[in-house]
Amino acid sequence: MNHPHPLQSLKRPLTEALLLGLQGIFGARLSTSQAMREHHGKDESSYDPMLPDAVVFAHSSEEVAAAVALCNEHAFPVIAYGTGTSLEGHILALQGGLSIDLSQMNQVVAINPEDLTVTVQPGVTRKQLNVEIKDTGLFFPIDPGADASIGGMTATRASGTNAVRYGTMRENVLALTVVTAAGKIIKTGTRAKKSSAGYDLTRLFVGSEGTLGIITEITLKIYPQPEAVSAAICSFTDIASAVNTVIQTIQMGVPVARVEFLDESSVRAINQHDKLSLPEKPLLMFEFHGSEHGVKEQAEVVQHIAAEFGAIGFEWATRPEDRSRLWQARHNAYFALLQLRPGCRAISTDCCVPISRLADCLLETKADCEREHIIHGIIGHVGDGNFHVQMLVDTNDAADVARAEGVNARMVARAIAMNGTCTGEHGVGLHKMDFLVDEHGEAAIDVMRSIKHAMDPNNILNPGKIIRW
Amino acid sequence: MNHPHPLQSLKRPLTEALLLGLQGIFGARLSTSQAMREHHGKDESSYDPMLPDAVVFAHSSEEVAAAVALCNEHAFPVIAYGTGTSLEGHILALQGGLSIDLSQMNQVVAINPEDLTVTVQPGVTRKQLNVEIKDTGLFFPIDPGADASIGGMTATRASGTNAVRYGTMRENVLALTVVTAAGKIIKTGTRAKKSSAGYDLTRLFVGSEGTLGIITEITLKIYPQPEAVSAAICSFTDIASAVNTVIQTIQMGVPVARVEFLDESSVRAINQHDKLSLPEKPLLMFEFHGSEHGVKEQAEVVQHIAAEFGAIGFEWATRPEDRSRLWQARHNAYFALLQLRPGCRAISTDCCVPISRLADCLLETKADCEREHIIHGIIGHVGDGNFHVQMLVDTNDAADVARAEGVNARMVARAIAMNGTCTGEHGVGLHKMDFLVDEHGEAAIDVMRSIKHAMDPNNILNPGKIIRW
Repeated sequence: MNHPHPLQSLKRPLTEALLLGLQGIFGARLSTSQAMREHHGKDESSYDPMLPDAVVFAHSSEEVAAAVALCNEHAFPVIAYGTGTSLEGHILALQGGLSIDLSQMNQVVAINPEDLTVTVQPGVTRKQLNVEIKDTGLFFPIDPGADASIGGMTATRASGTNAVRYGTMRENVLALTVVTAAGKIIKTGTRAKKSSAGYDLTRLFVGSEGTLGIITEITLKIYPQPEAVSAAICSFTDIASAVNTVIQTIQMGVPVARVEFLDESSVRAINQHDKLSLPEKPLLMFEFHGSEHGVKEQAEVVQHIAAEFGAIGFEWATRPEDRSRLWQARHNAYFALLQLRPGCRAISTDCCVPISRLADCLLETKADCEREHIIHGIIGHVGDGNFHVQMLVDTNDAADVARAEGVNARMVARAIAMNGTCTGEHGVGLHKMDFLVDEHGEAAIDVMRSIKHAMDPNNILNPGKIIRW
Repeated sequence: MNHPHPLQSLKRPLTEALLLGLQGIFGARLSTSQAMREHHGKDESSYDPMLPDAVVFAHSSEEVAAAVALCNEHAFPVIAYGTGTSLEGHILALQGGLSIDLSQMNQVVAINPEDLTVTVQPGVTRKQLNVEIKDTGLFFPIDPGADASIGGMTATRASGTNAVRYGTMRENVLALTVVTAAGKIIKTGTRAKKSSAGYDLTRLFVGSEGTLGIITEITLKIYPQPEAVSAAICSFTDIASAVNTVIQTIQMGVPVARVEFLDESSVRAINQHDKLSLPEKPLLMFEFHGSEHGVKEQAEVVQHIAAEFGAIGFEWATRPEDRSRLWQARHNAYFALLQLRPGCRAISTDCCVPISRLADCLLETKADCEREHIIHGIIGHVGDGNFHVQMLVDTNDAADVARAEGVNARMVARAIAMNGTCTGEHGVGLHKMDFLVDEHGEAAIDVMRSIKHAMDPNNILNPGKIIRW
């Protein structure tokens, strides 16, 4: 085992009585097979799997509520499962438990185009959602790399390439249905665009990673498809020039829809993976949304800024198929980078800093990777000050892992010192619990802990994640 | 007393020991004078005053922490005070207690124009903030009617006329410093634009109305002043046409910066109050922010939609002084409306519904007011589906108050049935505690209560507000 799990010893038993009770609810939709447990005991992180004792496939909030109530009586862990694409060990069954797979709760419950809202079950994936609402002329912009489930994206407070313009799950979830630790079903909001009605339970559950409740329905904002879209890419001789172009674009208030950075390694990786021939230099990819004229105006401002920082070329991708190809390549970057060192796994970092500190943070981190001779790529949602260093490590080589974790720890410390955060969009999971303390301080963590204790007194909801009990 | 306070009997004593302790911290900045207590025992609601036992003027987070820690030892209530402009009885000292006046903590702590953020003490008012950051070319858009303090606006999850474009305090607070019930000072976030780092304490404190902690520092997003601004007004023969113009504007995704509705009474009131000569018909006031061309484009789309709904005239206010005069008049509407029935007080309602239901909700409510013969005006941040019926009542006439409260209760029920909220921006305070239960349901309120109990076990933080203990 490469990443030992200190809490493994706390494993709680699945009793015969509990198993029978769960079978009563789920029948053939309960499984204790090794294959099923293995599938639900790992994510995309570099952690080794930690298996749940059983897996159920839920079909309704009521079933989830019944299962959680039963597990609560037995003080038995429950872990919500969507697509298994989390990156920080979120769904690993540290103490065993029941994996509640929500992927079959994949109905779009209501589309309200007249209000720019949609209500979905948690197993709907972001791509599925956009297919299902396409005819309305509306779209849902949040796009993490994976085709994640909306439930998982909500629980992780996910974002992606469009966040610079449209915000993250924090800004785009209007209301939730949640099953509490006691097995009660609650609604946390309405479809009103704003509200001052009491504690913001919606935002409390967004990003709570299954530790405060299980999300079983989500109402989201959706947006009119822009009248016009254009995209452009440009390369730079050095990283600082690329990043400074972004900083100035944001500071001038240009409402870019997307602005993504890829370092040379990442460009090389997507060239290979997606058969592209981009110059293997630091690259920015822009997308502009608006009216025909507005899009042109934005692009001209950005082109001018890029030229000031010595951009090499400024190429337009006006045809939709060219744009799709570029953005698909960007979304594939995680997998493309894996191929730079076959057989290895990626430790994917995720810090976010105030935009004025982005160049400093990114360049110092890059230098650290180079000092440590770590094969890596850096990609970033740089308009938000968020970037990922993907370090390719041999997880069987403890020294290799330690080097990469050292780079990550120093990067997080650097980001926090710059008044940034240890995770822009991936979440805490197992991997960042100590960084969370560094970022918030013990007193704030104590407040989080008091909330966890109040809302989940038996510590059954995804135990051992975000904060220590 | 017109609105009796059921919890008055719970008044807790200010002991000599506690008073001496507070004098040790605040010296001459502690007062128990009747005048000072009266000033701090009322807000802009129609409730009669309820006086705190003492008032202190805090100068630092550390002083607030010391005072709260001391009061917590004595299980003595503490109520944060900003400008006293809340509308739902938020700051009334139901159980007596210590009013902590934060108005002298009015420093802008840090301006970071390069990151589009500013950090302020809670006593800074919204107008003061905009004066202090003016030279940076940036502005803070949230503008409730009153020149409220940023601390109070944060605690109430306030918004205003710009929210349709820029969001509310929910979207614009990045991080807080908060004093907890135990008297600890915590930080809830960073200056990073996004984060997935643990429970969203920032959003939990935003809108918590002083019941979970006392906010002593706020980091806000600020925005580049738009390159171009234009404003337009147009009148309609009926309310439905005005509201339907707004609905279509929002559904088409036009990024209006402001769109305000005033009914005939409200137009008449501001005509009198601000010496204007607007047609006394339902009115829309628009403001557009963007590039020169973008602003023109937006306005043309809106003008076209308004024409389809039979708008009478579409007048431009291109000169900044004309725009200021119009918006000043709009901000004065609350006070202007008070003069429609001299000697009376206003019961100001505040519901918010999905935009497609706005015309129904507003018209049914208007009809109800007319049936009850209540002098009233309706104004609304209609782009968000939010409107206020301001009912002028003689608070010495119980039947008059009851009629108005009946209209309000039916309006709230209507809004909730339409999947809206009982308060768009004013908050819960004393007045909406029952509506909050109607909106969220007992199970969700229980979750809020469990959070309150966990974070404030002695119920010292603004007790008796938002939820019943």
